[in-house]
Amino acid sequence: MAHEREADVDRTIVFSDGVVAIAITLLILPLTEIHPAEHATLADIVVENSAALGAFALSFAVIANYWTIHRDLFGPLRRYNRRIGLLNMFWLAAIVFLPFPTALIAEGIDGGFAAFYIGTLLAVSVLNLLIANYLANHSELTDGEAAAESRRHVVASAFSVGAILIALIISLFSPSIGLLALLLLFPAQVIAGRMNRARQVSA
Amino acid sequence: MAHEREADVDRTIVFSDGVVAIAITLLILPLTEIHPAEHATLADIVVENSAALGAFALSFAVIANYWTIHRDLFGPLRRYNRRIGLLNMFWLAAIVFLPFPTALIAEGIDGGFAAFYIGTLLAVSVLNLLIANYLANHSELTDGEAAAESRRHVVASAFSVGAILIALIISLFSPSIGLLALLLLFPAQVIAGRMNRARQVSA
Amino acid sequence: MAHEREADVDRTIVFSDGVVAIAITLLILPLTEIHPAEHATLADIVVENSAALGAFALSFAVIANYWTIHRDLFGPLRRYNRRIGLLNMFWLAAIVFLPFPTALIAEGIDGGFAAFYIGTLLAVSVLNLLIANYLANHSELTDGEAAAESRRHVVASAFSVGAILIALIISLFSPSIGLLALLLLFPAQVIAGRMNRARQVSA
Amino acid sequence: MAHEREADVDRTIVFSDGVVAIAITLLILPLTEIHPAEHATLADIVVENSAALGAFALSFAVIANYWTIHRDLFGPLRRYNRRIGLLNMFWLAAIVFLPFPTALIAEGIDGGFAAFYIGTLLAVSVLNLLIANYLANHSELTDGEAAAESRRHVVASAFSVGAILIALIISLFSPSIGLLALLLLFPAQVIAGRMNRARQVSA
Repeated sequence: MAHEREADVDRTIVFSDGVVAIAITLLILPLTEIHPAEHATLADIVVENSAALGAFALSFAVIANYWTIHRDLFGPLRRYNRRIGLLNMFWLAAIVFLPFPTALIAEGIDGGFAAFYIGTLLAVSVLNLLIANYLANHSELTDGEAAAESRRHVVASAFSVGAILIALIISLFSPSIGLLALLLLFPAQVIAGRMNRARQVSA
Repeated sequence: MAHEREADVDRTIVFSDGVVAIAITLLILPLTEIHPAEHATLADIVVENSAALGAFALSFAVIANYWTIHRDLFGPLRRYNRRIGLLNMFWLAAIVFLPFPTALIAEGIDGGFAAFYIGTLLAVSVLNLLIANYLANHSELTDGEAAAESRRHVVASAFSVGAILIALIISLFSPSIGLLALLLLFPAQVIAGRMNRARQVSA
Repeated sequence: MAHEREADVDRTIVFSDGVVAIAITLLILPLTEIHPAEHATLADIVVENSAALGAFALSFAVIANYWTIHRDLFGPLRRYNRRIGLLNMFWLAAIVFLPFPTALIAEGIDGGFAAFYIGTLLAVSVLNLLIANYLANHSELTDGEAAAESRRHVVASAFSVGAILIALIISLFSPSIGLLALLLLFPAQVIAGRMNRARQVSA
Repeated sequence: MAHEREADVDRTIVFSDGVVAIAITLLILPLTEIHPAEHATLADIVVENSAALGAFALSFAVIANYWTIHRDLFGPLRRYNRRIGLLNMFWLAAIVFLPFPTALIAEGIDGGFAAFYIGTLLAVSVLNLLIANYLANHSELTDGEAAAESRRHVVASAFSVGAILIALIISLFSPSIGLLALLLLFPAQVIAGRMNRARQVSA
C-alpha cells in the first residue's frame, strides 16, 4: 500500500532540486569571466585555466553524484517532519557552499585549500549518513516498506564518509594526492553495494 | 472535503520556490570571486572574509527559515485571487532584494547597513503577517478547514515582527548587537507556539 | 469536459517558470557588486545607486507582471504544437534579454537607453498579443471553452502594446518622461478590463 | 496501456529543466556587466558589443533548440536506470559548459574559439544520438510503444551530428563561415523529417 506523498515533501524536493540545479550551473561562472589576451589561442586559454577547468569538472561530477544520492535517499519519503526538513537545509547549505572551495582550488591547491574542499564534501556525506540513518529508524515517514532501502543507504553513506576521511588525511600531507584519493569513492560504493547484496541474501 | 488546488495556485508556488532557490544560492557568489594573494593560506582567507562568511551563513539561515514559513503559509491555499498574488510578489521582491543588504553587511556593519539588513527582514515578516491574516479572514481561499492553521500563523508572524522590531531598534545604537538580537526570533517562535497550543486547548 | 494537459505543455510551463524566476532574481546582481567607500553611510550608498535601485524596482515589477500575464495566457492551454512552442521561446528570449537594457538604464537613461528598454518591453507585449491571438484562433489547443478567455487576453495585450508604443515615442523626446509614461499600462489594463466586461454582457 | 512515469524519471526531468533554464538565462550576464563610457549612445554600445550580442542570440537559440529535443527525447521515458541517468548528466554537463565557449566567441572568433564552440555543440548532439539510440534499443524503459518515436530521434540526431561535423571542419579553415555553417542544422532537420515520414509510410 504505497501512500501518496505529503504536499510538504513534494515542495521540499522541488525546492531542493532548484537549489542543486543552480549550484551546479553556477560552477561555470568563473570560466565565463575570462578575457583572453590579444592573439591568445585556444591552447593558451586551456593551459592558463587548466586548474579552473579541472575544478569545474570535479565539482560538476561531485554535485551530480550527490544529487543522485539525494534523489535515492528522499525517494521513499512520504511524510515530512521538522527534523528531516532541518537536515535537508543543512545538506543544501553545504551544496550551496561548495562553489566557494571550488573557486579556491581553481586558484591553487596548496595552503589548505584542497583540505577545505574535501572537508566540505565530508560535511555533505556526513549529512547523507544522518539523513539515511534517520529515515532507517523512522519507518513512519516512509511507510515502513522502504526501511530496508534506507538501511542500504546508511551502509553506502558510511563507506563514502570513510573514503572522504582518508582523502582528507592524505590531503594534509599532499593536496594533489588527496584530491586524487577522492577516486576512492568509486571502489567504496562498489564494496558497499556488495555488502548490501550479501546482507539481503542472508536476511 | 479537501479540494484540489487550482492550477494558478500550483504555478504560483512553483514560481515562488524557483525564485527563493535562486536567491539563496546567489548568496555564495561574492565568496566565489575571491582571488587569494600568493602564498595565502586557508586561515588568511577565512580571517579576511570572516564578515562575508558570517553574512552568508546568516542570510542562508534567514531565507531557509522564510521559505519554510512560506511553505506552511501557502500549504492550505486552494484558490487564487489577485490580492494573494500581489502580496506574494511583494514577498518575493523582499527576498530577492536581501542579497543587496547581505553584500553591504559583508563589507562592514556600520553606517546603518545592519539596520538596513534588519529592515529588509522586517519587510518580509510584515508581509508574512499580512498574508497569514488575509488567509485567516478569507476561508473561501482555503476551504475553511485551514482557518485555525492560518490564525496560528498570524500569531507566529506577529511575534516575529516584534522580535525583529526590537533587533532593529537595538541596531540603531549598536549594529553588531542588533544583528545578534535577531536570535530573539527563536524564543519568539517558541512562545508563539506555546500560545497557539494554549488557545487550541481552551477552544 | 476539461481535458488533461499534455505532458509537453506541463514541461514547457515548468521550464518557462524556471527561466522567468532566474531572470527576475538576477536583477539584484549589479547591486550586490557595490563596494562601499570607507566611512560611506547607507544614505551615501542609496543616493549613489538610486538609478540602479529604481531600475531594479521597475524591472522586478515589469517581469512580475509579465509572468502573471504568461500564467493567465497559458492557463487554458491543453495541447502543444511547434508554433506555440516557438512563440514561447521568443517570449522567453525577450524576458532573458531584459536585464541588459535594465543594466543600461541603471547607468543613465540618455543616449537612447530608455527607448531601448521600452522597446524590449514592446517586444514582450507584442509576443503576448501574438500568443493570445493564436490561442483565440486555435480552440483545438484549449478545448474551445477557453476561447472567450483568450479573446479577452487579445484585447488586454493590444491595449498594453498601445500604451508602451506611446511611452516609446515619448522617450525619444524625453527619456525620463517616457519611462514614467509606462505607468499608462495601469489605466490601459483598467480600460481593457471594462471593454471585456461590456462585450461579455452584450454577448 | 500508457504506464505512469516513475518518480525518478519525473525528478530527473525537473532537475534537467532547472539546469537548462539557468544555463540559458546566465547567457545574458556578460552583457549586464557593460559600463558605458560617458556620453556613449545606444549605437556605440551595440557596435562595441555586437559580437557579444550575436553570441547571446546564437547560444540562446542553440540551448532553446536542445531543450526542445531533450523534451521530445525524454517524453516517452517511463522507467529510470543508471545508464540513462549517466547519459543525461553528461548531456547536462555539456549544456552547462556552453556559456564558457560562448564567452570566448563573444571576445573574438579566431584562435580556435569557433571550433571549440562548435565542438561543444557536437558533444551535445552526439549525446542526443546516444540517448535516442539507447531508448530505441531498450523498449522496456518506454513501454515499447514509443520505440518508433525513439528511432525517429536517432535519425534526426544523426543528421544533426553530420551537419555540426561539417561546420566544425569548415571552422578550422574559416571560423566565421564555420559558425554560419551551423545554419545547416535547419535543412538537416527537414531532410531527417522527410526520411522519417518515408520510413513510416513504407513500414
